[in-house]
Order: sequence, then C-alpha cells, then structure tokens
Amino acid sequence: MDYRRLCKALGYRFKDEASLALALTHRSAAKQHNERLEFLGDSVLGMVVAKALYLRFPEQPEGKLTRMRASLVKGDTLAELAREFELGDLLKLGPGELKSGGFRRDSILADAMEAIIGALYLEAGLEEVEERILCWYEGRIANLDPNVHPKDHKTRLQEYMQGRKLPLPDYEVIEIKGKSHDQTFVIECRIGELAEPVRAKGNSRRRAEQQAAKLLLEKLSNAT
Amino acid sequence: MDYRRLCKALGYRFKDEASLALALTHRSAAKQHNERLEFLGDSVLGMVVAKALYLRFPEQPEGKLTRMRASLVKGDTLAELAREFELGDLLKLGPGELKSGGFRRDSILADAMEAIIGALYLEAGLEEVEERILCWYEGRIANLDPNVHPKDHKTRLQEYMQGRKLPLPDYEVIEIKGKSHDQTFVIECRIGELAEPVRAKGNSRRRAEQQAAKLLLEKLSNAT
Repeated sequence: MDYRRLCKALGYRFKDEASLALALTHRSAAKQHNERLEFLGDSVLGMVVAKALYLRFPEQPEGKLTRMRASLVKGDTLAELAREFELGDLLKLGPGELKSGGFRRDSILADAMEAIIGALYLEAGLEEVEERILCWYEGRIANLDPNVHPKDHKTRLQEYMQGRKLPLPDYEVIEIKGKSHDQTFVIECRIGELAEPVRAKGNSRRRAEQQAAKLLLEKLSNAT
Repeated sequence: MDYRRLCKALGYRFKDEASLALALTHRSAAKQHNERLEFLGDSVLGMVVAKALYLRFPEQPEGKLTRMRASLVKGDTLAELAREFELGDLLKLGPGELKSGGFRRDSILADAMEAIIGALYLEAGLEEVEERILCWYEGRIANLDPNVHPKDHKTRLQEYMQGRKLPLPDYEVIEIKGKSHDQTFVIECRIGELAEPVRAKGNSRRRAEQQAAKLLLEKLSNAT
C-alpha cells in the first residue's frame, strides 16, 4: 500500500508504516486488527476535543460542552473526516465486508479514523496528535454554536408530518405509575393512518413523548 | 481552607489554589462550580487510563481493555479515591447538600475527584497529571485481571437470595414485541414475598432478565 497521499492529507508522515497499516485493518481482515488502537484513539480524541472546547468556550456550562463534544466525536463526523482523507481505498477488509461494501460503511470508516489517531499518538505523542486533530477539526470547531440544539425527536416528527401535509402527531398519557418522586409515564403517540400508534415509557411526560416520537420516526424511516 | 494536607496526599502542590478550590465547589454552593473542570478531568482520566491499559496488556482485545477501564473510572472507584484523599471535608456544598450529607455522596465525591484531575491538567500539563493518576491508581492497576468479569446482575441477585436462604428468583417472559430482527422482550422477575415483582424490557431475553434483576437488587438495597 502507498500511504503517501494519506500521510500528506493527515499532515503527518508515519515513521512506522506497519502501525498505520494496522490502524487501517478491520477485524474482518486479520487476527491483528485495529480495535485496540481504536480504543486508544477514541480516548485521545475525546480529551483533545474536551480541552479545546473547555478553552474556547470559557462561559459555557458543562452540558453545552458535552453536547458540542458529542457532535464532534460521533461516528458520522469521524466518517466524514475519513472520507475527506479518502481512507476507504486504503482499508483492509475481510472478503465478507469487501463484498458488502464495508469500505463505505460509516462505522468502519469512523473506527479506522480513531485507530489512526491512536497510532499517531503512540508514535508522536500528545502534542503532535493534538495539533493534527485541531487542524482537521478547525472548520468544524469554528462553526460550533453552543446555542444550537440538535433537533429533538418530537420536532423532527412534527416536521416530517408537516413536510408531507399530514395531520400532526397526537400524544396521550396512557398510564402514570409509581409514587410522585419516581414516576413512570406511558405515552401513546398516534399519527393517523400512516403507522400504528406506538407507546413509550419515561420518567417524565416529556421524556416519554420524546421516546415515542423517536420510535415512530424509526418506524417511518424503516418503512420507506 | 487549608489544602496542604490534600496537596500532600495528591502528591502535587497546586500553585493556583483558587483552581483547586473551584474543583471542590459543588454546583449547589456557588455560581462558579466544578462541572466544567469535571468535564475536562473525566476525559483526561479516560485517556490516561486507556493508554496505561493499552501498554500494560498488549495481548488483550479491545473489549477487555474497555471493561477494565470502566472499572477504574467508574464513580465508585473515584469516590474511593476521594475518600482516601479525605476530599469530603474540603468540599464546598450548598446548604441543602450539607444537610443531606452530600459530602458523603459517591457521585459528589467522584465529580470533585474528576474536577481535581481537570485542574491539575490545566495547571501542570499532561505529563504531570498522567504521573499523578498512575501513582494514585498503581495498586488498582496492578490488581487488574483481564479475565475476571464483574458479576452480572442475575448472579448478584441469585447470591443475594442464597445468602439469605431464600428461594431463587423466577424469570418469566411476559411479552415479545416487534419483528424478529428488532424484538423487545418484557420479563417479569419474582422473588416470592420479599418484594413486588418487577418488569423490565430489553432487546434480548438475556438483557431484559439482567435489567429486571438489576431493578430488583436496587429495590432490595433501597428497602434495607
């Protein structure tokens, strides 16, 4: 494999190419694979991003830092990065994964990205890996807005229905169980003829409704 | 507050005592509290422990590293550490928490411990905080056995009942919902007269049973 293009994109030239190769090896391909490096890289990424957000947003409470971090380190974002680096072509996959297009799968790309971070950390130390990560994430971090909430499930379900000119979802409390300090709410969410109603539980009415909306959205997206 | 004893126990003398004081301030006590430092410290601890395990157990797969790490960074372990350092006496708590004995609560102690790690990292850098953490955890890491599984909830419930010469718990499938690839199991667990039966859900029979056993154990330990 020729890793020169990848190293150039990463901004780091691996001295130990075997370590980079290991980071690109999915468990389906070989006994020695990238899961241990992924374990390490995941924690390195989490810390580097935590520190960057801590320093960049001195006024933001922990909850917002946590949410922003989650958006940066989640699989989708890592898979995006991996695609920017064209990792897919360099992955080592077993025959099953190759056939089923595993090189395009988000989770496999994201895991390899984390494994590369782990390998980079082992070879070059924290300072270097931190500099690389912040460089890769520069635009994404600059675009963060601590006050933008990812859309909640009820909003998404409502928008789904509105977008199709369908009646809005209807939520009903079916049951409240337990004593006042430890209640469980059962909510039924109905959306007319489009799908069977679903029920969900939660320790508040709001959470149960969110959960019901989430289940319905999953149902709808599986159905299409 | 006199932090000399604490600094001696930690093995690090904070130059910025205000930062240490902040790490010891619970959100109930002041507008400026330790949650942001806790966010940072949590990620630092996770990474330091991940690296230590990665290097110490070169033959262990990711799953075992993950499990060992979880046992080292979980709240119980951090609260233990906090008690060794006698953090409780130095915590700043609001009046409500003071009255209810918050200085003894595991979660408050664990959070303060993480916040101290965050403050130490900011002041002294990764190398120093890594050295400190590994020193505090030395015995716990030395005692790790990658092949010892933490006891699962069903086993713990069974041992609880056996230890009291009570009949063994009984699990029954109450409901199976959903299609074959996406089923939800509802399990009821009964333990005779000792407590009301509980029901729990899971996407496999095993998980639902574990969850039911967990709920029952919580019920039993709250009752005593």
